[in-house]
Amino acid sequence: MRLVHKYGGSSVATTEKIMAIARRAAELRRQGTNLVVVCSAMGKTTNGLIALAKKVNPAPSKREMDALLSTGEVQTVSLMAMALQSLGVDAISMTGFQSGFITNDVHSKAFIKEINTQRLEQYLAEGKVVVAAGFQGITEDGHITTLGRGGSDTTAVAIAAKLGCPCEIYTDVDAVYTVDPRIYPAARALKTISYEEMMEMASLGAGVLETRSVELAKKYGVSLYLGRTLEPEKKGTTVMSQQVFFEDMPVTGISIKEHCAIVAFPPMDYNASSAASIFSLIAGANINLDMINQNIIDGKVAFSFSCSDEQALELEQQLKQSEAPAPALQIRRDLTQLSLVGVGMATHTGVAVRVFQTLARCQIPYYQITTSEISISFTIDKENKEKAVQALAEEFNL
Amino acid sequence: MRLVHKYGGSSVATTEKIMAIARRAAELRRQGTNLVVVCSAMGKTTNGLIALAKKVNPAPSKREMDALLSTGEVQTVSLMAMALQSLGVDAISMTGFQSGFITNDVHSKAFIKEINTQRLEQYLAEGKVVVAAGFQGITEDGHITTLGRGGSDTTAVAIAAKLGCPCEIYTDVDAVYTVDPRIYPAARALKTISYEEMMEMASLGAGVLETRSVELAKKYGVSLYLGRTLEPEKKGTTVMSQQVFFEDMPVTGISIKEHCAIVAFPPMDYNASSAASIFSLIAGANINLDMINQNIIDGKVAFSFSCSDEQALELEQQLKQSEAPAPALQIRRDLTQLSLVGVGMATHTGVAVRVFQTLARCQIPYYQITTSEISISFTIDKENKEKAVQALAEEFNL
Repeated sequence: MRLVHKYGGSSVATTEKIMAIARRAAELRRQGTNLVVVCSAMGKTTNGLIALAKKVNPAPSKREMDALLSTGEVQTVSLMAMALQSLGVDAISMTGFQSGFITNDVHSKAFIKEINTQRLEQYLAEGKVVVAAGFQGITEDGHITTLGRGGSDTTAVAIAAKLGCPCEIYTDVDAVYTVDPRIYPAARALKTISYEEMMEMASLGAGVLETRSVELAKKYGVSLYLGRTLEPEKKGTTVMSQQVFFEDMPVTGISIKEHCAIVAFPPMDYNASSAASIFSLIAGANINLDMINQNIIDGKVAFSFSCSDEQALELEQQLKQSEAPAPALQIRRDLTQLSLVGVGMATHTGVAVRVFQTLARCQIPYYQITTSEISISFTIDKENKEKAVQALAEEFNL
Repeated sequence: MRLVHKYGGSSVATTEKIMAIARRAAELRRQGTNLVVVCSAMGKTTNGLIALAKKVNPAPSKREMDALLSTGEVQTVSLMAMALQSLGVDAISMTGFQSGFITNDVHSKAFIKEINTQRLEQYLAEGKVVVAAGFQGITEDGHITTLGRGGSDTTAVAIAAKLGCPCEIYTDVDAVYTVDPRIYPAARALKTISYEEMMEMASLGAGVLETRSVELAKKYGVSLYLGRTLEPEKKGTTVMSQQVFFEDMPVTGISIKEHCAIVAFPPMDYNASSAASIFSLIAGANINLDMINQNIIDGKVAFSFSCSDEQALELEQQLKQSEAPAPALQIRRDLTQLSLVGVGMATHTGVAVRVFQTLARCQIPYYQITTSEISISFTIDKENKEKAVQALAEEFNL
């Protein structure tokens, strides 16, 4: 049986932790598993390297930053291979270029174009445990790239997709929860979740797994398991396709995203160029839009969007410095975005009504609202976060 | 004009030092130099990585060790490229595989088979400062290798050989001296030295430059300069071919190698297998032989060799543990090997006589002696080191 394991930075932060994972991998190998172990950089290595870079250049080039950061994962995988060898296990490390991860040339957030797993397959056939560096790839021209946030998860899922085997992602949380247990201690660990729900949870701030790796897993039907590193028994969450299970509950979980802002434009005359001018302003400020609302009332356009607090602040400063006349934006900060996610929403009606009735009953004002087929998102003032989560978790029995 | 600069680990130990070297390189670039900067790993990085490796595996595989250690140089070169970019200089870093260093597969001391400088040439033609990682290469199968001790010097010389340009090697010593100034403060810095002499000095323990890189420089006629990092004016040593200059002096310098031992075998009957059995014993103990003496007296073979103290100790322990009957070796430790080097020896006769008369006059006993065309080496007790160096330096006006 083939299997991909992925271990995050905190799981490989010390040589003791690396040894412990090596022992687990050695056990699996002895049981006959053909194992690929994907590792991130040790603990705070990446942050340390970024700090070094900032000392020589406040705005380092992304190509050089990628070359620098890629060394962190190479260190972990060679140490992991040595640890396995010390246990009598035949193991070999692979860097991004060795494991054939060809990417495009968008440094710091490259996309995988192709994976040449010939060598990896050969090592597995020879009975080796393959220890592959996460997060990194190489362009066709031989430049080192990195895959961006959560890149090691993407590496692991991509290898599993190529090998046609399951992927187990180990971190320092023990499962995906209905709600962040730090905010709602009564939250339940989910045994299963659909790819779609996990993607919504991820993109809406659950922070367990990046959307991109879940998307990749869905596309190639990779069975994903999320659990705590070296857990004695599997108490984590399996991400699988929607068809596999049926949840009677309309809402699977609530994801929480903090430090949000809403930026509202003053009403403008409606014409073809009004939206265009807004978007060029936003694009110029390099803002990642979150929710977008546009209503047309009495021939006027009311446009607003949500983004991070930080980006709202940057936009405000840019507008102040701009020589062109800028619209008088209304920016509301210190908001929290809550998102209720559940594939059941598609079939259960009335979820939105129950959400907003619950908020009204608790006298919690809510702002911008967006919905997808399997989610409802809205922003509230951050001081209402606990109260809102508590009330909604009870309402939907999470 | 094309030029290769090489900076050792202590010269790039901090980001401040990296910035200082970047400023120097930027200045050279502005003056029109097509510059390649070869860097070692920062300060004690390599030692730190070795210590990490030993924690997970007391005897790590050389393949994994090479992968691990190669990250040190990659970190330096990406930081150096960023530092240059912060000064407005177009710069690009290259790892071993990117700069096309194809080696054989002898991990930890690989030999260069071929260098594909196409990409490096292209970057230089584009006006970029190329910052190349020293010490590392890649096999034809894509495994990461390292070039062994002094490997970054070899990288620098090899690039200079391919580009047909001079190579300047910067360290924390300001020149090659006639004698180690810590032992003989009156020693003179050499303006020039021949490749042959430098090779002898290097292999005999001068520690400034590894023999291998000098050999390579000689083979390809690369002009080598050795000097102190960021020296305001050139006070270092130029290594050049013997024909270029003529020294009236028979001895150019004395090199000193400490912690030596002499291992003597009891006289054996002379037959074809006696030498073979000695060499198989030595090979089994993985000893680097230094000087070898074999005399045949009265049909008996007297065989002895010198090696490091450490290796003599290891050999002794191995023989104790061995089940086969072992010869009763006589091991003399705590010796110092002195070597007088000079191309003039080939034409000046009587150097050996002057050496041993000087030692006799000072009542310094000497042991094993070997000579080459341009050197005389012998071992003495370590407590006689200063006295012998002093007397010989005065005798030969060093």
